[in-house]
Amino acid sequence: MRMYDIILKKRNGGELLKEEIDFFIEGYTKGSIPDYQVSALLMAIYFRGMNKRETADLTMAMVNSGDKIDLSKIEGIKVDKHSTGGVGDTTTLVLGPMVAAAGAPVAKLSGRGLGHTGGTIDKLESIKGFSVEMTQDKFIENVNRIKLAVGAQTGNLTPADKKLYALRDVTATVDNISLIASSIMSKKIAAGADAIVLDVKTGSGAFMKTIDDSFALAKEMVDIGTNVGRNTVAIISDMDQPLGFAVGNALEVKEAIDTLKGCGPSDLYELCLALGSQMLMLSKKAKDEKEAREKLEAAVKSKEALNKFKEFVKAQGGDISMIDNTELLPKANLEIDVKAEKEGFVSKITADEIGLAALSLGAGRETKEGSIDLSVGIIISKKVGDYVNKRDVIAKIYANDIEKAKTAEQKIHEAYHIVKEKVEVRPLIYGIVTKDGIKRF
Amino acid sequence: MRMYDIILKKRNGGELLKEEIDFFIEGYTKGSIPDYQVSALLMAIYFRGMNKRETADLTMAMVNSGDKIDLSKIEGIKVDKHSTGGVGDTTTLVLGPMVAAAGAPVAKLSGRGLGHTGGTIDKLESIKGFSVEMTQDKFIENVNRIKLAVGAQTGNLTPADKKLYALRDVTATVDNISLIASSIMSKKIAAGADAIVLDVKTGSGAFMKTIDDSFALAKEMVDIGTNVGRNTVAIISDMDQPLGFAVGNALEVKEAIDTLKGCGPSDLYELCLALGSQMLMLSKKAKDEKEAREKLEAAVKSKEALNKFKEFVKAQGGDISMIDNTELLPKANLEIDVKAEKEGFVSKITADEIGLAALSLGAGRETKEGSIDLSVGIIISKKVGDYVNKRDVIAKIYANDIEKAKTAEQKIHEAYHIVKEKVEVRPLIYGIVTKDGIKRF
Repeated sequence: MRMYDIILKKRNGGELLKEEIDFFIEGYTKGSIPDYQVSALLMAIYFRGMNKRETADLTMAMVNSGDKIDLSKIEGIKVDKHSTGGVGDTTTLVLGPMVAAAGAPVAKLSGRGLGHTGGTIDKLESIKGFSVEMTQDKFIENVNRIKLAVGAQTGNLTPADKKLYALRDVTATVDNISLIASSIMSKKIAAGADAIVLDVKTGSGAFMKTIDDSFALAKEMVDIGTNVGRNTVAIISDMDQPLGFAVGNALEVKEAIDTLKGCGPSDLYELCLALGSQMLMLSKKAKDEKEAREKLEAAVKSKEALNKFKEFVKAQGGDISMIDNTELLPKANLEIDVKAEKEGFVSKITADEIGLAALSLGAGRETKEGSIDLSVGIIISKKVGDYVNKRDVIAKIYANDIEKAKTAEQKIHEAYHIVKEKVEVRPLIYGIVTKDGIKRF
Repeated sequence: MRMYDIILKKRNGGELLKEEIDFFIEGYTKGSIPDYQVSALLMAIYFRGMNKRETADLTMAMVNSGDKIDLSKIEGIKVDKHSTGGVGDTTTLVLGPMVAAAGAPVAKLSGRGLGHTGGTIDKLESIKGFSVEMTQDKFIENVNRIKLAVGAQTGNLTPADKKLYALRDVTATVDNISLIASSIMSKKIAAGADAIVLDVKTGSGAFMKTIDDSFALAKEMVDIGTNVGRNTVAIISDMDQPLGFAVGNALEVKEAIDTLKGCGPSDLYELCLALGSQMLMLSKKAKDEKEAREKLEAAVKSKEALNKFKEFVKAQGGDISMIDNTELLPKANLEIDVKAEKEGFVSKITADEIGLAALSLGAGRETKEGSIDLSVGIIISKKVGDYVNKRDVIAKIYANDIEKAKTAEQKIHEAYHIVKEKVEVRPLIYGIVTKDGIKRF
């Protein structure tokens, strides 16, 4: 088999065989196929596309390119959740305890990563003493006992995807739906999930800017899951403005705790109920959505979810007094109000811009080696549709450096669009994609 | 400027600016732009194409990537001829003396190259003592005095084209008409031509298999020439069967001499008249095709062309007694008749297959370092349309190794198609492309 013939076949619109995809991914991973042939193939795939079978084969070839995490010692069906990324997305911290309290195992292996704010592990480290350092046996024991643990992802997972992504990033071949979907799904499958719930974000702060593109990506990922025997469900949710109010590490932990206490932002809570319901159904802990929602709401009302969070934090060395009293979480020195420059209705809050404002305060990493300031961030106080008077506080900046705060303030003003006419508020959830098809709400 | 943006622009169907093309070619030549970005761009160009302006800019960027040969000290308009390649193509050896005898300067810088037989220099070296070793001054002096010289191409011409071609060859991006045309034209322009006559071959033994593709390539190259101020004319000629009878180095030299003596194959002579007429017109040595043909025919009839060939060979150290008596040229030990296996009309002689037969005898190089046996080759004696009886000689093999001869014989049988019904003979010349348009005959 020759890589040249594989490129030629795809260039001419042919369908690649499983053996050809395996040959390409194995050869690229071990270095016997050079970057320049792979980038030519990627561009041909950009123009010619891949069908469902090719996309599923590519996904599994990437899964098989490296280590696979074995979660088989954990009792029950392990459902993983993945978000395509957005700003102020605190769902994992809320969902985990809710779903665990309702009886489904949550074995979360997370990274630190780059972004506007830190990853799940960074956020949890806002709680004094909390650590993800533990043996694999301890991790599994914790999940079996508490139903919830968060560990650091180790091992060489999907090296082919890492190499391919880096190449796509510099050759203008990122935005092909088969390549995006197989990249995401390969990571989830290699991480040991039996079933997967996807939160596909749509809007200005999301990777997919249009609703149709978001549904298409969701469908592609659900099809991959179905093809490779992992039950997969996707919810398409809004990311045209930040989710909840908080953007920043300790600030988002506080918001998550507030939500578990029953007094968090309604959009965050509602999205957690929607995603959590799907997780419970996939793990067979609820027979339908109605039962699943009831179980999750009951877990919050009874404080079982909050207690589950405490139990989990304690088991990983965290100081649970910070959960009872969130005032003890890391705090920034400066609190600066951002005030509306005119009156009217908030028509848009560019989520990306708010994310960059948080990044400029030090809430996220720009490079892998970068450090994070857990205390800084932004709390937005007005959302799309709200009416503001001139000089009303639209957001609060938590900073440790006045210059950085000024930069952030500028960006927040740029993010907020205020207009005279009343605006229509976008829905929180646009629909759901399952193996049975697409349902738009 | 970033290569990433250039790839993205072309991928999305945009038109690349001259500065972007220059940036890409300069960066690639000096190594600051990696292969993997270039192959992605090439594949995007394959799908999106390039317009006339982009193709002309790419051509000149490649010309400017290396040395350019300065022929300005040669008097008159220097017209170069280029063939897109075929089997048994002896035109250069015939054309040069004919055109020079008619008064136009022929300053040929040639390579050795790979192929079924050797290049022009290899062929001429069949004549004892002939050498292309001379200073640049001597070369120019010879052209000015004799009107004809053949030198070895030296210097670092179009390094960008060399690098790009090698990359295209392994990334399935060779067959794009803009890329093919700019590659050919950049080499001719860098070699110092004021005007260019192209012999675009069409048929089974040619790079372009169909007549329409051949016209399209011809048009693309003429447009480039027009765009960059080099008067360019293309003739589309048949390469569905070998041109003339001889395939092999010394055998082709003999055939060229026979043609200059007025007793060569009629197709070879006719093609040389057609190409030579265009050369004379472009160099302003004839006002129209009629006058040009008359001058060329007169040069052959009067033996002026043959004497010009002798003068040129002598000036470069060659033994002209071999021209007077071609029996003195290198001769193979074995002469083997290939006989028809059945009777009927020759419907097809797959030129590629005849070329491979010659290569298997040792007439050409398979690698750059390979050596050539100047004496071996094939003389075909039946052409398409001819009627043959069973056991008629269809070709003669000239070999120095009986095993190689057997391999060649097998290939010759495979090349010859003999059928019961009379066949229609393809024309020799299909048409001409000039800056004024396409004329199909």
